[in-house]
Amino acid sequence: MTESDPLGRLAHALARLPGVGRRSAQRMAFALVRNQGRLIRDLGAALKDAESRLATCSRCGAVTLKSEDPCRLCTDPRREAKVLCVVAEPMDVAILERAGAFRGRYHVLAGRVAPMDGEGADDIGLPVLLARLAAEGIEEVILALNFDVESDATCALIREAVAGRVKVSRLARGIPSGSGVAYADGETLARALAGRQSM
Amino acid sequence: MTESDPLGRLAHALARLPGVGRRSAQRMAFALVRNQGRLIRDLGAALKDAESRLATCSRCGAVTLKSEDPCRLCTDPRREAKVLCVVAEPMDVAILERAGAFRGRYHVLAGRVAPMDGEGADDIGLPVLLARLAAEGIEEVILALNFDVESDATCALIREAVAGRVKVSRLARGIPSGSGVAYADGETLARALAGRQSM
Repeated sequence: MTESDPLGRLAHALARLPGVGRRSAQRMAFALVRNQGRLIRDLGAALKDAESRLATCSRCGAVTLKSEDPCRLCTDPRREAKVLCVVAEPMDVAILERAGAFRGRYHVLAGRVAPMDGEGADDIGLPVLLARLAAEGIEEVILALNFDVESDATCALIREAVAGRVKVSRLARGIPSGSGVAYADGETLARALAGRQSM
Repeated sequence: MTESDPLGRLAHALARLPGVGRRSAQRMAFALVRNQGRLIRDLGAALKDAESRLATCSRCGAVTLKSEDPCRLCTDPRREAKVLCVVAEPMDVAILERAGAFRGRYHVLAGRVAPMDGEGADDIGLPVLLARLAAEGIEEVILALNFDVESDATCALIREAVAGRVKVSRLARGIPSGSGVAYADGETLARALAGRQSM
C-alpha cells in the first residue's frame, strides 16, 4: 500500500499522530475501513467538529472553543489572577485542571528551549510571557515543566528573565504518590531527600 | 473534558481505534488540534477518501476499491486459482502480499470461532467458504490463522468441514527468521523441533 491509494493515505496520516508507528497506523486504517463505516464516520465527524469549533486561547495558549476567547480559565473571576502556572503543552493544562490542585491562571509556552537546535528565548515565546506578567501584574510564577535537559534550560531562561520582579518556583521532584522507595531511581531518591518536608 | 465538547468527542473516537488507550487518545486529540490545523485537515480528508472509495471485496473479503469488485487479487489471471489462503482479517492479506510468498487467492473469514461466546460456524462464514470452494473448484486450502485457542478451534472446524474434499494445511510454527533458540519460548521450541526440516 502506498500513499496514492486511500488506505495507504489514511495509514500515512494516522502515522503522524504522536506515539503511532507504521504498523499501528496500518492496523488502525484497516480497523476504520472494516468497522462497517461507523467508526470512520464518527471519527470524521469528530475531526470536523474539532477543526471548526476549537482554537487556542489568545491569552494563555490553552485549547478553548472559538466562541470563548479568552478561555474560561482566563476569565473565571474566582481564580487567583496574580499566580501564573507556566506549562509546555496545552494538554498539560487539562491534566493539571483534572488534578484540581491549582486555582490560578495558566500560560502555555510556544515551545521549549533546544540549545542543540539553536532554539532560545524567542522560540518559547519569552517576550509574550514577560509582556503578560507586566500587563496582568503577576506576582508569582510556577514552572510546571517536565524534568529533562531542555525543560531545565527553559526554566533557567525564564527565571533569569523575571528574577527580582516575581516569585518563581518549580514543581517538586520526589517519589510519586502510591509508589515507594524501592521503586524510585537514585536521582529521584536524592531529590526526595533534599526536598524532605518537616512533619 | 467530556464527550460533549469537541476535544473530548475527538479523544473518545480515537480511543475506539485498536491499541489506543484513553491517555494516548487524549494526547492524539491535543496534537491534532495543536498542529495549526494541518494534520486535522489531512486526516479528515484521508478518512473521507477512504470512506468514499474503499469497500470489501464481495468475493474474498479483502479491502478493495469500490471501483474494483472483485478485487485485483481475485481477478489477476496470473495467480493460482485453485489454492486458497484463508485469513482472519483483511489486513492479513496485505501483510502476506507484502511478504510476496503466496501466489494464489485469498479468503477472509467473517470472524473467528469463540466457543465461550457461543460463536461457531455461522460466525466465521463457513457456509460462504464452502460454497466458494465448490464454485471455484478449489483444490488446496492454506489456513493462515494465528496460533491461539480461538484460531485453533476455527482451523479444526474448517478442516472437519472440508475433510476429504480438498487438501488442508496450516502455517508452520517455529523460530522466527532473524531470531534464535535463546529467544524462543518452550512451546515454540517444541514446535520447531517437531517440525524440523531435513537438509
